[in-house]
Amino acid sequence: MSSVPMKRFEAPYLGAAYYPEDWPLEQIGEDIALMKQAGMNVMRIGEFAWSRMEPREGKFDFDWLHLAVDKLGQADIATIMGTPTCTPPIWLVEKHPEVLVVGDNGRISQHGARRHACPNNRMYRDYCAKIVTKLAEEFGKDENVIGWQIDNELYPEPRNGRGCCCPVCHKKFQVSTCKKFSNIEALNKAWGTDLWSQTYQSFSQLPIPRSDTWHHPSLLTEWMDFQSDSYIEFTEHQAEILHKLCGQPVGTDMMCLGGIDYYKMHRNLDIVQVNNYHQESDLWKVVFWYDMIRSQKDRPFWNTETSTCWPGATTANKYKSPGFCRANSWLPIALGAEAVLYWLWRSHWSGQELMHGSVISSCGRGLHTIDEVKEIAAGFRASAEFINETRCVNSGLAVHFSSLAWLMFEFQPLVNDFRYGEKLIESFYRSLMEASLRADVIYPAASLDSYRVVCSPFLPTLDEAGLRERIEAWIKAGGTWIVGPLSDNRTINATKFTHAPFGSLEQWTGAYCKYQIPGDPRDFALRWSDGIESAGSIWYDGLEARGAEALATYTEGPLKGLAAALRRKVGKGQIILLGTMPGREHLKKLLLSVCSQAGIEPAAQASPNLLVVPRKGKAAEGLIAVEHGNCPASLTLTRPATDLLTGRKYTGNVEIQPYGVMVLKYDPGFPI
Amino acid sequence: MSSVPMKRFEAPYLGAAYYPEDWPLEQIGEDIALMKQAGMNVMRIGEFAWSRMEPREGKFDFDWLHLAVDKLGQADIATIMGTPTCTPPIWLVEKHPEVLVVGDNGRISQHGARRHACPNNRMYRDYCAKIVTKLAEEFGKDENVIGWQIDNELYPEPRNGRGCCCPVCHKKFQVSTCKKFSNIEALNKAWGTDLWSQTYQSFSQLPIPRSDTWHHPSLLTEWMDFQSDSYIEFTEHQAEILHKLCGQPVGTDMMCLGGIDYYKMHRNLDIVQVNNYHQESDLWKVVFWYDMIRSQKDRPFWNTETSTCWPGATTANKYKSPGFCRANSWLPIALGAEAVLYWLWRSHWSGQELMHGSVISSCGRGLHTIDEVKEIAAGFRASAEFINETRCVNSGLAVHFSSLAWLMFEFQPLVNDFRYGEKLIESFYRSLMEASLRADVIYPAASLDSYRVVCSPFLPTLDEAGLRERIEAWIKAGGTWIVGPLSDNRTINATKFTHAPFGSLEQWTGAYCKYQIPGDPRDFALRWSDGIESAGSIWYDGLEARGAEALATYTEGPLKGLAAALRRKVGKGQIILLGTMPGREHLKKLLLSVCSQAGIEPAAQASPNLLVVPRKGKAAEGLIAVEHGNCPASLTLTRPATDLLTGRKYTGNVEIQPYGVMVLKYDPGFPI
Amino acid sequence: MSSVPMKRFEAPYLGAAYYPEDWPLEQIGEDIALMKQAGMNVMRIGEFAWSRMEPREGKFDFDWLHLAVDKLGQADIATIMGTPTCTPPIWLVEKHPEVLVVGDNGRISQHGARRHACPNNRMYRDYCAKIVTKLAEEFGKDENVIGWQIDNELYPEPRNGRGCCCPVCHKKFQVSTCKKFSNIEALNKAWGTDLWSQTYQSFSQLPIPRSDTWHHPSLLTEWMDFQSDSYIEFTEHQAEILHKLCGQPVGTDMMCLGGIDYYKMHRNLDIVQVNNYHQESDLWKVVFWYDMIRSQKDRPFWNTETSTCWPGATTANKYKSPGFCRANSWLPIALGAEAVLYWLWRSHWSGQELMHGSVISSCGRGLHTIDEVKEIAAGFRASAEFINETRCVNSGLAVHFSSLAWLMFEFQPLVNDFRYGEKLIESFYRSLMEASLRADVIYPAASLDSYRVVCSPFLPTLDEAGLRERIEAWIKAGGTWIVGPLSDNRTINATKFTHAPFGSLEQWTGAYCKYQIPGDPRDFALRWSDGIESAGSIWYDGLEARGAEALATYTEGPLKGLAAALRRKVGKGQIILLGTMPGREHLKKLLLSVCSQAGIEPAAQASPNLLVVPRKGKAAEGLIAVEHGNCPASLTLTRPATDLLTGRKYTGNVEIQPYGVMVLKYDPGFPI
Repeated sequence: MSSVPMKRFEAPYLGAAYYPEDWPLEQIGEDIALMKQAGMNVMRIGEFAWSRMEPREGKFDFDWLHLAVDKLGQADIATIMGTPTCTPPIWLVEKHPEVLVVGDNGRISQHGARRHACPNNRMYRDYCAKIVTKLAEEFGKDENVIGWQIDNELYPEPRNGRGCCCPVCHKKFQVSTCKKFSNIEALNKAWGTDLWSQTYQSFSQLPIPRSDTWHHPSLLTEWMDFQSDSYIEFTEHQAEILHKLCGQPVGTDMMCLGGIDYYKMHRNLDIVQVNNYHQESDLWKVVFWYDMIRSQKDRPFWNTETSTCWPGATTANKYKSPGFCRANSWLPIALGAEAVLYWLWRSHWSGQELMHGSVISSCGRGLHTIDEVKEIAAGFRASAEFINETRCVNSGLAVHFSSLAWLMFEFQPLVNDFRYGEKLIESFYRSLMEASLRADVIYPAASLDSYRVVCSPFLPTLDEAGLRERIEAWIKAGGTWIVGPLSDNRTINATKFTHAPFGSLEQWTGAYCKYQIPGDPRDFALRWSDGIESAGSIWYDGLEARGAEALATYTEGPLKGLAAALRRKVGKGQIILLGTMPGREHLKKLLLSVCSQAGIEPAAQASPNLLVVPRKGKAAEGLIAVEHGNCPASLTLTRPATDLLTGRKYTGNVEIQPYGVMVLKYDPGFPI
Repeated sequence: MSSVPMKRFEAPYLGAAYYPEDWPLEQIGEDIALMKQAGMNVMRIGEFAWSRMEPREGKFDFDWLHLAVDKLGQADIATIMGTPTCTPPIWLVEKHPEVLVVGDNGRISQHGARRHACPNNRMYRDYCAKIVTKLAEEFGKDENVIGWQIDNELYPEPRNGRGCCCPVCHKKFQVSTCKKFSNIEALNKAWGTDLWSQTYQSFSQLPIPRSDTWHHPSLLTEWMDFQSDSYIEFTEHQAEILHKLCGQPVGTDMMCLGGIDYYKMHRNLDIVQVNNYHQESDLWKVVFWYDMIRSQKDRPFWNTETSTCWPGATTANKYKSPGFCRANSWLPIALGAEAVLYWLWRSHWSGQELMHGSVISSCGRGLHTIDEVKEIAAGFRASAEFINETRCVNSGLAVHFSSLAWLMFEFQPLVNDFRYGEKLIESFYRSLMEASLRADVIYPAASLDSYRVVCSPFLPTLDEAGLRERIEAWIKAGGTWIVGPLSDNRTINATKFTHAPFGSLEQWTGAYCKYQIPGDPRDFALRWSDGIESAGSIWYDGLEARGAEALATYTEGPLKGLAAALRRKVGKGQIILLGTMPGREHLKKLLLSVCSQAGIEPAAQASPNLLVVPRKGKAAEGLIAVEHGNCPASLTLTRPATDLLTGRKYTGNVEIQPYGVMVLKYDPGFPI
Repeated sequence: MSSVPMKRFEAPYLGAAYYPEDWPLEQIGEDIALMKQAGMNVMRIGEFAWSRMEPREGKFDFDWLHLAVDKLGQADIATIMGTPTCTPPIWLVEKHPEVLVVGDNGRISQHGARRHACPNNRMYRDYCAKIVTKLAEEFGKDENVIGWQIDNELYPEPRNGRGCCCPVCHKKFQVSTCKKFSNIEALNKAWGTDLWSQTYQSFSQLPIPRSDTWHHPSLLTEWMDFQSDSYIEFTEHQAEILHKLCGQPVGTDMMCLGGIDYYKMHRNLDIVQVNNYHQESDLWKVVFWYDMIRSQKDRPFWNTETSTCWPGATTANKYKSPGFCRANSWLPIALGAEAVLYWLWRSHWSGQELMHGSVISSCGRGLHTIDEVKEIAAGFRASAEFINETRCVNSGLAVHFSSLAWLMFEFQPLVNDFRYGEKLIESFYRSLMEASLRADVIYPAASLDSYRVVCSPFLPTLDEAGLRERIEAWIKAGGTWIVGPLSDNRTINATKFTHAPFGSLEQWTGAYCKYQIPGDPRDFALRWSDGIESAGSIWYDGLEARGAEALATYTEGPLKGLAAALRRKVGKGQIILLGTMPGREHLKKLLLSVCSQAGIEPAAQASPNLLVVPRKGKAAEGLIAVEHGNCPASLTLTRPATDLLTGRKYTGNVEIQPYGVMVLKYDPGFPI
């Protein structure tokens, strides 16, 4: 493995979260020495340290933080600075208990955990502004700081799935709903509140939809969408300050979850940051999330948190097999990241998360993964130029993901046990992955211009961000749209259409949906146009094709003889309407065939457990391959390539070890 | 299938719940046309529409409702009118938040769901009186309205199993308990409150028995019995108004649940209404409930709600096999109903239940069950005369069911996992059904006069409605009483007897209960007098026969050699005392033998999965047979008969399809 | 079986809990006659009868109680008197609702259950003092009373695992924490509160650590340790009164649970009392608890409660096989008790526990276990002299148990699903038992003087009661210490050490712990020095021996080649450090070998399902053997002995029936 020295603060970054506030300052030197040994070049710092930065109201102390940042910088280790607003000091909540999050059960949050202040509380916002301003003034021009992270893992806290239910939030929700609907009659009409005499007479009557009450799904969806907006507004408030005072890019580290709108969140941020704690058996699913994160901005993202081994709080949550750290650390890089940071550098010696895995232990010893970390660091260095100068190739294929859909399905699962994120990944995205079809995962608001095939399974409303009009135009201009099941079946207000089961799908395809049946407690068989029979899943629309081409037909049950999937040319493009979610193999076949017609080919001939990501830049081209199932894998190269991690040259068939990684740069001069 | 036109508003009725308030009024015509196509002749209407009837306090609007009723009537579709008191408008609860139900956790209910107003609150009662009076004035003489439904599914809401815990209920409970016991010493003595120093000094100290406290079972039983009484009083309050102003019969639609007293509820109502949402595997159990409902009044009942396919709220709760709708719709008719109404006519387009199955979809398309519905409608028409002119034959056999027993077992299950309703049906009633023994299910307060055999399994107290004295007299006059296990083991105050394990059973049978053992974690074997050994279940009384005839004897365990079941002649009658619940086959054998001796024979030689109901009237006689297990079945006819659904004649052995139905009218002139 | 008449009130005692307050006084005679028939010579009385003793504030009535005690005494039945403070009368809580326990959810407890008054409330303490003083004055010199039981089953009520959260407790917690740490900076430093800005500025800011908040484990541990102290202080308050006014020994009946400190509790009590309700499959586990209870005081303990058959509340909780009552009643006697009392004498006829098993039923009939009870009584009489004149032999082996460890693991399980009590018994104590190695179970505060081998698995802190210094001195003086896994890994403040994974273990053994891995989701194989390979469990320390003797070495995974267990001579003694919990067979082998080296041999060659307890006194010596697994067992005698229960003589191999018991007194004159 070559060992090219990196330029100071040059990507790709490998690092960790570092909490100098929890350790003696004298220990910084020892830590830095160990970081260097581990090959690290970035530390994330500051995110929870408000009480150290402002131990008493208005008394600021950044000396210790400067010391840490400076010493890190002197050692060529960059700093990502976090604003500490996730954990207000006790003097703040003691003086202003009204800033505390209130549960839907009326209980006021306590000091001692995280995320317990209300994002909408003005007093809290003011205190946040003060500390963020101070911090920005201190580090906004610091050359050792390469970026900002606002707060930490912003998300409406579970708390019975209702977020903050304080009076401020309640009032603000009423006001924002009023702004949206203008008058209460419009809301009543949109939500159909005549049902059960739910009709409101003024916006001030809108309740907090408590979890102990059987509430209207439109109200619930609106409430949680408001919660999402609240955290976005909260973030923008800080971003504005940072943008004014700092030179570095600004972001916020988010979770692999869908209830908060990533697209809206990033409109006013510079860099997308994501935390990942997938367990070993679920590792493959993180590909979906990175494909979504990458697609947010035309700029490499940061994997701000992941674990070298087990996540954990007061228990260590599962040992991982050798190689897991390697695959887990390379997946984001392959998929468009320029930074990977472990949580955390040194295990906490106290507190709620003292059993979480780390790079080194509380007593400064490398964990059993330390050699893997060093190998990863060396690999990053060895392939730095390739990583920095290439980007993931846009294949022309996209899959829709929507936080609004997430909320709608949360409050209207439609079928027992349907969970949007899980089903989208397990029953749809998995087939794409196994077929080596590389996709962007985009929000409905995203532009469709660069795609030739777009998939929209489980997308209940097309009325988000004007998608209905835009997708129609895009299809007519030549796009291929794979849609359904359970798509275009809700208005923007989470109600049904009344003219048809769908908003536009019947009109666009000419088909007629005769019956609809849930895939519970059983599934139904269908025969595909290739003559093979297999079962659908989740949901069953029984369609009369009426001029469209039936791709699959039900062979049993009340839908027998009706189409389960069909195709219709529309303008220069076409719609593939899925009335049910096909079995995995058949879906793979369908996707390969449809993509191929649109000129989209698999990234490689590769094992289904191997992620292969084509990368291309002005001066270089190649593939990054990561095995994510802890099994052997293989890949067929169409061009001779060199693995930058080993320097070995490959042609044709390549074998990859379990959790193996290859950075295959195509040899120059070979005709494409 | 013959197609006799029905007279206007003549039973049997097939219809659905219709919510014109949730749809454009212009759509009524389209709906009515579809109803006619589906063969419907009744709609249930109004039950939740308070905010449409009285959009502002004192401002009433019934125009839309008259329009709907009139148009339905013009199309020969009758209306059942519901009072809308289940869902008070927001102006009411906003003006009088004190009417809201309070949970046992102190939380006040919210607007936006159902059943959130306190049945005992005087203010709420007054508002209810106003809207019900108005509604009665408008429709009490309307010839299109054939009956009234008060409120909807009245039941102490689960809310941790404690009903409304508001101060009004609390006070009223103390007053009613005072009225019952006269003085606190009597209560202390009756409940044995010296235990754990629970002794009360005044009725004002009686607490709401919260679910987070380990409360006295006598207190819990009393509290929930009070809750039951509260809803009954609430209903009677409306019934009084309706009886004064209206010409039509009055009822309230209830659930298949036992915690509210059906017998007391119907003392002042005219027609029994019941809702049924049994899933496919449990369909057979509904027979028990219909047998109970029929036995409440000497008048055909109404199946006010059932589903064509899946029930559901925001998920569709399980597809049903073809034919389910048929069997499910005919079961009530066979068992004494004159009306079957689906919930709901047109699927809701919004709100909490928008995924519930229906007759037509939100966009006006028949569901996949539409042809079954039409076939059922045709069947009802074809057999209308037979249904209307015959009644279920009283076989002379009855089974006791008690809401007080339900409450006692809820708070004293006696054996792990014992649930009264489930066990009564699964371990006792099932054997009756499989033996084709037709029974009435009666409350302890019901007259015993028309029965020759009465079964009282799991009936802890005989002191309800003077049953102890009445049953003794009835036995002495010749009745056969099958009693136990777990019967006559509690006083009316839910305490044990202290002179013996039973109140009277030892005295009446002469037997002596030596030991009692729970059927947990194992069951014990017994040998029946026929020499066959099988296991008992649930509970084990070990009896010394002492002159009674042992029917079964334990063959193992600490009870070995003691009797498990015995018979004793008492006067002209006899008691069969069960010390354990026999295995299903043995119970069947026992019941057949005991009934036969009392001159009660099976309704037919039929498969266990076939319900056969003998029907008899002045001019006609026959059987209605419904297959309820989705399996083939057969039946041996003792007289030639014609299936009114097909016009085909049958003699001897008859095969019935899965979920098949036959209305077999005996051919005239054949000697009985 | 011989039937020697016992002296009045002479141990061993067999009896039950008797509640004359719940029955007509006229019935006492009948009860006593039945007690005599059953062979009973002690009754426990009074514990919940406050409302009968003081029906109105300041109005006392002890006549009924004197009547009961006197009549019992006249029948040679001793009384154990309970203070009734577990169940305050309603007049008390009505007058002073502030005495009621408050849940961590803010809900105030209700009258009607037990343990609902706050142990720290001064008003409640005053009322307790009054009733206890009165009771002591009445019965403190009563010759029929042989001892006192304070309150009942004192334990911080589950209530979400937080005990009483009332303002008095909150304040007192802050004060006691202040007292412990002196200044808030010390607390912040000890707990590491810089993490997440948790830093406190004054003790008055310390919150009640509610269960709905993700709190710091050091705070949680401190809070629950304070709860434990509160109940101990509450008990001492009564003990002081009783000691002043009474001549009899004082104790309190406790549960087989670890969250309250038994050692501290008994510093000021005279007699250890314990309640046991183990189910049949868990019966063997009670040996651990009795070994702990016996080790608290150099005086025979009382098994104050156990069941003849099923425990239960409003359900009867599981029938037991014949013989269970025998084995269950003899286990405490074998292990050092002088009294066994069933709960309860006569089944309650009302209330929350009316289905609990008993000696006689509510109607005065012996339960199916009555003959077993009589046989046990006869056995106690037959072997009274042997029981009274011998004590369990101290083998020189002890196992540490710590309530503080219990709390630490409750709030820091370290590995998924780790529960301290269960794991200690199932993965460690079980091997000791199966090897017939008899141990004392001692608290860290206990003296080590009488032991040659001490085992400290799962003992996170050595800083409780100065154990660190004491154990080191004890080892150097010749002790053998078996320690780990998961020992010496936490400071007294429930935080990690930062200089090493352990406080002293590396220093003492010379070993170096390279890696630590949780035993989740898989376990790792190790090879023992005997060449046999087996899997460890729970936790994996990978140790470099560095001069210590490796006893077992990992053969796979990241720890391959590192030591899993090692031995190091220290002074005249040695340390056996376990890095993982060995498999059951290997642990047994290790324990036998280590003990043997220290001169500790198994109590007998016996089946693993047979408890054999060597007993020795001035004039007698022998074994008590109890089969606890309901299987046949055998035992090899090294000396001729006579079974005092049968009078039969045995030598060599002895067969014991399932649930069989033998009291084997060695024949005199045989050389040891």
